Amino acid sequence: MTPKGAARLLAHHPWVYRSDVLEGPDSPGLYPVQSNRGVLGMALYNPASEITVRVFSFQDTERPLEVLLEHLRKALTRRKPAIAQEPGGAYRLVHAEGDLLPALVLDYYAGHGVLQVGSAALEPLTEALVEVIRAEIPLHSLLAKNDQKSRSLEGLPLHVRALLGQVPDFVMVQEGSVRYRVDLTQGQKTGAFIDQRDNRIRLGSFAGKKALDVFSYHGSFALHLARGFEQVIAVDSSAAALQRALQNATINGINNISTREANAFEFLREEEKRGSLYDLIVLDPPAFAKGKRDVERAYAAYKEINLRAMKLLPSGGILATASCSHHLSEPLFYQMLAEAAADAHRTVRVLEKRGQGWDHPVLLNVPETHYLKFALLEVM
Amino acid sequence: MTPKGAARLLAHHPWVYRSDVLEGPDSPGLYPVQSNRGVLGMALYNPASEITVRVFSFQDTERPLEVLLEHLRKALTRRKPAIAQEPGGAYRLVHAEGDLLPALVLDYYAGHGVLQVGSAALEPLTEALVEVIRAEIPLHSLLAKNDQKSRSLEGLPLHVRALLGQVPDFVMVQEGSVRYRVDLTQGQKTGAFIDQRDNRIRLGSFAGKKALDVFSYHGSFALHLARGFEQVIAVDSSAAALQRALQNATINGINNISTREANAFEFLREEEKRGSLYDLIVLDPPAFAKGKRDVERAYAAYKEINLRAMKLLPSGGILATASCSHHLSEPLFYQMLAEAAADAHRTVRVLEKRGQGWDHPVLLNVPETHYLKFALLEVM
Repeated sequence: MTPKGAARLLAHHPWVYRSDVLEGPDSPGLYPVQSNRGVLGMALYNPASEITVRVFSFQDTERPLEVLLEHLRKALTRRKPAIAQEPGGAYRLVHAEGDLLPALVLDYYAGHGVLQVGSAALEPLTEALVEVIRAEIPLHSLLAKNDQKSRSLEGLPLHVRALLGQVPDFVMVQEGSVRYRVDLTQGQKTGAFIDQRDNRIRLGSFAGKKALDVFSYHGSFALHLARGFEQVIAVDSSAAALQRALQNATINGINNISTREANAFEFLREEEKRGSLYDLIVLDPPAFAKGKRDVERAYAAYKEINLRAMKLLPSGGILATASCSHHLSEPLFYQMLAEAAADAHRTVRVLEKRGQGWDHPVLLNVPETHYLKFALLEVM
Repeated sequence: MTPKGAARLLAHHPWVYRSDVLEGPDSPGLYPVQSNRGVLGMALYNPASEITVRVFSFQDTERPLEVLLEHLRKALTRRKPAIAQEPGGAYRLVHAEGDLLPALVLDYYAGHGVLQVGSAALEPLTEALVEVIRAEIPLHSLLAKNDQKSRSLEGLPLHVRALLGQVPDFVMVQEGSVRYRVDLTQGQKTGAFIDQRDNRIRLGSFAGKKALDVFSYHGSFALHLARGFEQVIAVDSSAAALQRALQNATINGINNISTREANAFEFLREEEKRGSLYDLIVLDPPAFAKGKRDVERAYAAYKEINLRAMKLLPSGGILATASCSHHLSEPLFYQMLAEAAADAHRTVRVLEKRGQGWDHPVLLNVPETHYLKFALLEVM
């Protein structure tokens, strides 16, 4: 490794890029990472990948596979109490680096598992991983949803196939007092956005007259708001997503959600012209910053929607606002909100600084593991 | 005002320093803040104070006193549900800028109020403030604890006197499942450190064999830990503080807390030499950075205690670590912790990023209102 690569590992960051690898085996696998300081840890290694080295242990060991499987066992054990409490719920069972299992994601949807393998060093170990999963967690089925584009960069084929049992097309998931439908084989990511689960449940404790859910997608925030608010408006640019939101409302016997198919920026601008006011607004946009180069443009876009939303809130109004771009750091996110507040001429209190759910764990030394920012704000 | 002073207010920061005030009245009072853009807000004004202008409203108004008293009423109303739920608890009823009431602090200890007035513009309004307080919150007594040094900078005399009722020397406060004694007239600050209340209660849900409470003061973290841990060691450099910790333990029928009178840095160093291990460690040091100039030195001191504590934790061990220096920003705090983890050769997960309790509200545009950082970490 180059000194730069070694410095990253000594700072307990698990990735070394190809340009910092001086020498290594020709084929992917689990290997010790050598530097002139000795062995720095054990890694998933793939010479074909941009992220060539992904450390899963900063200890030296003779039995790397056992260490890896032990990390998997620990990750699953950590989620067992939540599953026992609500077997019909949805949880992330393995969150890659956050569980010391780089390139591995496993989600749980009401008894059905969805696995994503993102490293050629891990792919041949799939069977061993599945053995541990089946021993630890009772599953009706397990799907390998290996269709993410990043697999091509690893030199891996794209495929979706059942590893255990019969995989249904969709399942119903319980989330607090709300149920919603998740498509296992067709959905985005592994099927739903469970990183916001605890934030959605949290919003279920607010009440008032009018709430607005912007970038509503399948209406998952709107469903929780419909319990406490007389009227909820769900806004999304996709008619199909809003159709699904209304289906989810029907499933829950909810009839106070109405939908608007619209561009969020235009909708908020129009509402401001109209002088509309809401008691609570949710902004849960897609990642505006997909890469480092986008940050400046994304910052302006986040600021615009937040500024406009703040203008639609009276004194005492609540703004629940998120960013899932890990390129927009938490300090930048709050700086953006402060600028939006000043420009909107609103004095704003921070009720809670939240983030992704506990089952999407964050490592202190790996900023990439902390991607979801979620602020609960009150206009004063 | 200078353009610099106006820029601060336009960014919704409420303070203007004397060097940025071009012209103003000769005596303290409530005044509109003028700039060449017109009236920027209403402020507590004191020409003798370094912070000459403290804005309490970014609106223009003919009746500034009524706006101020309305802010007080809102602040008290916000705490009423908590008081109703636990009248024997302790809460901050007014948190200065965080409640749009600059220079005013009001704490509640089991039915007794403690007030601190820190502005010469506010001092003559004390009677009007007390009227609102007595109308909103049932109080056995109310103490003006106006002995903080900062009053001298405002040209105000130091005094401690009863404003309502008979003020007892001490009261017993209920905090979750724990009771502790608070000295109203003699204690630090207004009597206790209630900003950590919710963090202490949170730690009461952890369990294990050995827990360590460093910078324990009156043992308030140790009391909560004693429920879930077999053995708790409370460390402080003050024998008198530890004596109080043991008295508090007795009050609660707790006999598994032992104390060590020691310098925290030396104690942690010795424990590392001994190879001691704990299941959970609390680090709640006093503010190491009292001013901007201290930040570098304070950073090194925070890093040292955190690094040493991490070395005393096995895999699965919990570190609960705080900083109440607002000069050490939240990003710097987490950077310090990441460096400590790398140097201690520990992989560390962030379980929760916490801060001061909800009754010490933070304003988005006033970084000074967010001073307490509290991280719950797990060594992996």
